[in-house]
Amino acid sequence: MDATPLKLDPKHAFQNLSGLLDDDVQAVEKLLIERAASPVSVIPNLSGYIVAAGGKRLRPLITLAAAKACNATEMAPVHSLAAAVEFIHTATLLHDDVVDESDLRRGKPAAKNVWGNSASILVGDFLFARAFTLMVETGRLAVLDILSNASSVIAEGEVHQLAVQGQLDLPTEDYLKIIEAKTAALFEAAAESGAVCADADESQVRALKAYGRNLGLAFQLVDDALDYGGTTAVIGKTVGDDFRECKITLPVVIARRRGTDEDKSFWDRALNPDKQTDADLPHAIHLIRSTGAAKDTLAEARSYIEIAKKALAPMPKSDYREALLDLADFCVDRAY
Amino acid sequence: MDATPLKLDPKHAFQNLSGLLDDDVQAVEKLLIERAASPVSVIPNLSGYIVAAGGKRLRPLITLAAAKACNATEMAPVHSLAAAVEFIHTATLLHDDVVDESDLRRGKPAAKNVWGNSASILVGDFLFARAFTLMVETGRLAVLDILSNASSVIAEGEVHQLAVQGQLDLPTEDYLKIIEAKTAALFEAAAESGAVCADADESQVRALKAYGRNLGLAFQLVDDALDYGGTTAVIGKTVGDDFRECKITLPVVIARRRGTDEDKSFWDRALNPDKQTDADLPHAIHLIRSTGAAKDTLAEARSYIEIAKKALAPMPKSDYREALLDLADFCVDRAY
Repeated sequence: MDATPLKLDPKHAFQNLSGLLDDDVQAVEKLLIERAASPVSVIPNLSGYIVAAGGKRLRPLITLAAAKACNATEMAPVHSLAAAVEFIHTATLLHDDVVDESDLRRGKPAAKNVWGNSASILVGDFLFARAFTLMVETGRLAVLDILSNASSVIAEGEVHQLAVQGQLDLPTEDYLKIIEAKTAALFEAAAESGAVCADADESQVRALKAYGRNLGLAFQLVDDALDYGGTTAVIGKTVGDDFRECKITLPVVIARRRGTDEDKSFWDRALNPDKQTDADLPHAIHLIRSTGAAKDTLAEARSYIEIAKKALAPMPKSDYREALLDLADFCVDRAY
Repeated sequence: MDATPLKLDPKHAFQNLSGLLDDDVQAVEKLLIERAASPVSVIPNLSGYIVAAGGKRLRPLITLAAAKACNATEMAPVHSLAAAVEFIHTATLLHDDVVDESDLRRGKPAAKNVWGNSASILVGDFLFARAFTLMVETGRLAVLDILSNASSVIAEGEVHQLAVQGQLDLPTEDYLKIIEAKTAALFEAAAESGAVCADADESQVRALKAYGRNLGLAFQLVDDALDYGGTTAVIGKTVGDDFRECKITLPVVIARRRGTDEDKSFWDRALNPDKQTDADLPHAIHLIRSTGAAKDTLAEARSYIEIAKKALAPMPKSDYREALLDLADFCVDRAY
C-alpha cells in the first residue's frame, strides 16, 4: 500500500449507488415485507428478523443498477426480480446457519437460535418459493431460467464445501470452484437477470454477467480474508466464524502451504472440529498474517475486481455504470 | 362395509394407471436420474437413494394423467413438469425428515441418517431449484406460477404444523387447513398444471384442480389413519411415526374429544415429547380404534374422494378419466 493513501471513504461508493436508486430500493423493501406476509405468524416474524437485520442489499442493488445501466424503462418487473434475488439470498443464509451451526448472523443471534432449526429450514423454503412467484411477475422465462440454474449451482457449491471439510491441502482451483458456485453464481445471476429484465442486447447481458461473476469471486475472497481480520490489526467481532466452523478457505490454504512442518501440524489439528481449542484462533490469525496469506488473498480479489471493471467496457456511459465501477472498488477497499 | 365386499385388488387401479402411461412414466424416470446429476457426487447419491427408494410416483402420475385426460398432444413438456413435481415432493421429504427427526423413510433409514442433516437440507434445495429449471422447459409461466405458489403454501403448512405442536384440542378445521397446505396443495398443483400444460380450457383446468385438491385431502387423512393401523388388526411396520413425532392428526383429535377424562390425560401426556414412553403406542392404537376415530377419519377421507370423483364430470370420457376415478377409490381402499 502507498505511504499516503488518498482514499475515499470505502462506504462512499456504496451509499452513492443506494442514493442513485433510492426510489427503487424503497419499492424493493416494500416487496420484501409484503411478500414475506403469511397468516402463519412465525414466517413474517422470522423472515422480518433476518431481512431487517440489514445486510447491505448488495445483490438486489446490483440487479437494479444492471437494469438501469441497460436503460430499463419499466422498473416494476425489475423490482420484483430484485426482491426475488434478496429472498433467494435470505433463504440460503437461513439454511447455511443450520448447516454451519453458526450462532451469530450479522452480529445478532442466528434465526435458528431464536426459532429453532426446523423453522429456519421451512421459512427458507417459503422464501425460496416466494422468490419464484416474484420472478413469474417479470413475465420473462429467461429470468427464471437464470435464477433456477444459479440456485442449483449454489446448493451444489455448498454440498461441495461440505464434502471437502477437513481437506487441508485443497487445491486453490477447487477452492475457487466452490466460491464460484456458492457466492459468485448469485452475483452473476443478479446482474445478468437485471440486464435481461431490461431487454438489453446480448453484448450488454454478457458484460453484466461477467461483471457479476468476477465481483462475486472478489467479494467472497475478501470475506474469507476478513474472517481472519484481513491485514489490519483491528479485529472485528465477526472474526473467526470460518475458523470455528473449520472451513477450508484460501487464506488457510496459502498459510498452510507456506508454513513449516510445525505450522502444518497446527492447521491440521486446529481445523479438526474435535481438536480445536479456544486458544487456536489468535495463532491462526498470526500465521495468516505472517505468511502473507491475507495480503495475497486480497491481491487475488483485486485481480477479479479489475476483470469485473473491464467487463463493463461495452456498457454506455451512465451514472449507473460509474456506480457499478465504484462498487467494485468498494468490495475490496472495505478490507483495508 | 358390506358383509360380502366384492372388491378389486386395491393396487389394481394404481397399476392400471401406471400401465396406461408406461412410456410417459419411463420418460419421467429418465429425467429424474438425468436432472439429479452433478459432479458433486453426494448429490446424485443422496437423491438417487431417496428417488429410487420408490414411492409410488403418485403426484407425477396425476400430472401425466391430467394432461392426457385433456388430450395433450405434445408430451415432452408434460414429462418435464411431472419430473419437476416429483423433485418438489422429494425436496420436501428430505427437509421433513430433518424437521421431524424421522429416522425411517419408506422403510429404509432416512437420507439424513446416511449422509447427515446438512446434506439432506442442501440436496433438497438443489432438487427444488432443478424443479424450477425443468418447469422453465415447459415454456409456460402459468405452470411456474402454480407450482411456486403451491411450494410456498406447503412450507406455510409445515410451519403451521410446527406451531400447533402440543395443541391437543386442535379444532378439526385447523387440522384440515394444515393438511390442505402441506399435502393437498401439491396434489392440486400437480393436476392443475398438467391440464395447463395440455392447453386445456378453463373448465377442465378447474375440474382437475378440484380433483387434485380433494384427492390430496383424502390421501393425507388415510395416511394419518394408517399411522395408527387404520381399522385393521394387522399393523404394518410404518405404524406410529406420527405418534412418536407427537403430531396432532385427526384420529388423535377425534379420539381425545370422545375420550374419558382419563383418556384425555393419557393423550396429553403421551403426545408430550418429554413424557411419551414406548408402552404408549399400543394404548393409543386401542383408543383410536375403540372410539371409532380411525373409522371416522376414513369416512371423512371417503367424502373427499366422492367430491374428487364428481369434480371430473366435465371431463370427456377417456381411459385416463376412468383411471383417475379408479385412482381416487384406490387412495381410500388401500386403508382396508
